[in-house]
Amino acid sequence: MIKKLLIANRGEIAVRIIRACRELEIETVAVFSEADREALHVQLADEAYCIGPTASKDSYLNFTNIISVATLTGCDAIHPGYGFLAENADFAEICRACNIIFVGPSPEAISKMGTKDIARETMRVAGVPIVPGSKGIIKDEEEAINLANEMGYPVIIKATAGGGGKGIRVAKNEPDLIKGIRITQQEAATAFGNPGVYIEKYIEDFRHVEIQVLADNHGNVIHLGERDCTIQRRLQKLVEETPSPALSSEIREQMGEAAVKAAQAVNYSGAGTIEFIFDHHQQSFYFMEMNTRIQVEHPVTEMVTGIDLIKEMIKVASGEPLSVKQEEVTFTGWAIECRINAENPAKNFMPSPGKIEMYLPPGGLGVRVDSAAYPGYTIPPYYDSMIAKLITYGPTRKEAIARMKRALGEFVIEGIHTTIPFHLQLMDHEKFVDGDFNTKFLEIYEVMK
Amino acid sequence: MIKKLLIANRGEIAVRIIRACRELEIETVAVFSEADREALHVQLADEAYCIGPTASKDSYLNFTNIISVATLTGCDAIHPGYGFLAENADFAEICRACNIIFVGPSPEAISKMGTKDIARETMRVAGVPIVPGSKGIIKDEEEAINLANEMGYPVIIKATAGGGGKGIRVAKNEPDLIKGIRITQQEAATAFGNPGVYIEKYIEDFRHVEIQVLADNHGNVIHLGERDCTIQRRLQKLVEETPSPALSSEIREQMGEAAVKAAQAVNYSGAGTIEFIFDHHQQSFYFMEMNTRIQVEHPVTEMVTGIDLIKEMIKVASGEPLSVKQEEVTFTGWAIECRINAENPAKNFMPSPGKIEMYLPPGGLGVRVDSAAYPGYTIPPYYDSMIAKLITYGPTRKEAIARMKRALGEFVIEGIHTTIPFHLQLMDHEKFVDGDFNTKFLEIYEVMK
Repeated sequence: MIKKLLIANRGEIAVRIIRACRELEIETVAVFSEADREALHVQLADEAYCIGPTASKDSYLNFTNIISVATLTGCDAIHPGYGFLAENADFAEICRACNIIFVGPSPEAISKMGTKDIARETMRVAGVPIVPGSKGIIKDEEEAINLANEMGYPVIIKATAGGGGKGIRVAKNEPDLIKGIRITQQEAATAFGNPGVYIEKYIEDFRHVEIQVLADNHGNVIHLGERDCTIQRRLQKLVEETPSPALSSEIREQMGEAAVKAAQAVNYSGAGTIEFIFDHHQQSFYFMEMNTRIQVEHPVTEMVTGIDLIKEMIKVASGEPLSVKQEEVTFTGWAIECRINAENPAKNFMPSPGKIEMYLPPGGLGVRVDSAAYPGYTIPPYYDSMIAKLITYGPTRKEAIARMKRALGEFVIEGIHTTIPFHLQLMDHEKFVDGDFNTKFLEIYEVMK
Repeated sequence: MIKKLLIANRGEIAVRIIRACRELEIETVAVFSEADREALHVQLADEAYCIGPTASKDSYLNFTNIISVATLTGCDAIHPGYGFLAENADFAEICRACNIIFVGPSPEAISKMGTKDIARETMRVAGVPIVPGSKGIIKDEEEAINLANEMGYPVIIKATAGGGGKGIRVAKNEPDLIKGIRITQQEAATAFGNPGVYIEKYIEDFRHVEIQVLADNHGNVIHLGERDCTIQRRLQKLVEETPSPALSSEIREQMGEAAVKAAQAVNYSGAGTIEFIFDHHQQSFYFMEMNTRIQVEHPVTEMVTGIDLIKEMIKVASGEPLSVKQEEVTFTGWAIECRINAENPAKNFMPSPGKIEMYLPPGGLGVRVDSAAYPGYTIPPYYDSMIAKLITYGPTRKEAIARMKRALGEFVIEGIHTTIPFHLQLMDHEKFVDGDFNTKFLEIYEVMK
């Protein structure tokens, strides 16, 4: 088993990983930028070291300093959390070269899934449903035009190296398509150093449903059901839940099997997520992408399965087999997560960093808070605005929502603006309560607009 | 369904009840003594009213003021929590007379179980195992001597009106017995206005194991498994867990059945607990007493069954049937509760009221905190010293303990002394970890003595 682990991250996920390590009796080393000297993860870890200035590129993305700290403190493993270096194949490669366990999949798996057209092709070969579109990068405009005519418009043009909503363009007709390909190629060449684009049928009205997978180094791959992350604002997830109110048990089973196939296709190891476009009208789903890391929304899965995903990641990275078999996985109740961001929802979600004057998280039955906030903590303006994840659990969706409203109402965060008022409105929204929404929910309906 | 509920209590249980009401969309009315003006339950309730001076007898035990507030605010129900009026049959009777729902059993059930010799006789008739001893109050010394000779010494002399460790005396031989009866009778006459005493075989080496029951007004009675509350200090429970590390599945089943019989024998309604003496050497158990109210340690049962006991109490009091049948009750994982008291364990658990300068409860997976504390809150010296209940949950006892250690280590309460250091030592104690202890654990072993 891993004996000492460096957490190459900050915020709530760093705290989450430290908690798991403490329960496993693994020593922890935190790292921090100059702006994070007072951060909670720094206080909770057994040891903590500054790895550079405020800018992420100089600290949380600083390979050399992170590897140096790991080596000098005798860490045998690094957990990257999410964001920062979590999906950086080069970093995983360097860890391997330095004989440090990277708690995550192999550099090869990260690479394959990180390059969109390769991931798409890998999925096609593995028999995982993909959105109709080009086989890999399009060679010329003619190929694109023929394909678009076959599939019908609208189509979507994607830069293979893009991500997070960048390098994407929708085309409604042929002139749009030709123009769109040229612009996207130019942009992608500049922004990502790779001009390759591909096209797909554009599905407008869909839900974002993803499957959590777990794999070990002994050939075992299981899935832990789905998460519905359809409630988004500008491609940022705001609320996640499991099970999905939109999935039939047949689709759930098919999606789970597809996710296992996807993970197997890249010899996956550790915790990962296959994101799907779920077309609820057609009752069909398509591979969107795989996140080769732990996700922000992993707690909802933990609540309904009882499986500690971070501990599983660490055990798998230590060489242990998965602690459960697929047939032993059970799903009980309903869990919802609201991301509490330091943003002002009444002012277009404008960031609201600053000092938390008063802080009291909600408690009681079925309430979980994952946060790195504390009374008197000053949220720096330089990093992610998420300051807490509030997760509620209940026997039914109705009870999980009622508990969420109760817990949101109880959550005291003074001194800054947060997204709590937004979530309170959302939890009362008829369409949300009915589970009847797609990814454009927040564009369509009045919730703190 | 109840529409508006008065909580005739304070502290964490008042907060617990307000939380359940909010989730059920029931309006809440808090009451408070002059010392509790800044209390959290006052801030969380929809309305709050002062019911008198600091002394409990003038406020939290003040029938007239409490009933007046309930009537004037249009409450249709009162939840008494635990302590104060929770087992006061007269108060339950007055609620009934005022057409206010008392969230708890009938005054008759409270009375029967509150009078020790009647409870004992009721259990005997119902076929619930009782400790060998006298049938009701002993008539004269001769009866006592004959019975003690039959059973063998030591025996225990108990005042029927006693409780909480008062009015109890152990006799190791005949002179002890005669003297003990006389003193106990005199004391009981003075303290409780009832000189009646009875005798029982004295079982020295036992575990305290209790069964949670739930009953409705439609004839349904179920049990929700046991809680092991063996870790006590001067008859005060400090740590509770479920399941019990000492119970076989056969004993568990027998004890559950006995508890259901006990509840049925008094036409019980709502949530109640049958406490048993479990003789782990003989693998036999005996009725100790029934608590006709919600208990401090109810959360551990909620964690493993997923059943919200306060909601069930409220629903039952509203006339609804129980939401689950016995065969639908499932038990998953292990839960432990540590009572965090404002006491200094290094100074013989001396009370340590005062201002909480800094407060940050632990969070994350499998951690629940039930508390009425907040940063800046001043704990008054007049009431119970318990300021938080920390409950951890895990798939196994080992994991629940590891999580408890992690959560205790993370819990920040500055400005006062707490029992956290005691619990940290206890969780590391070999005998505790082995589950091998009786009610004298803290007298026998070195834990912060």
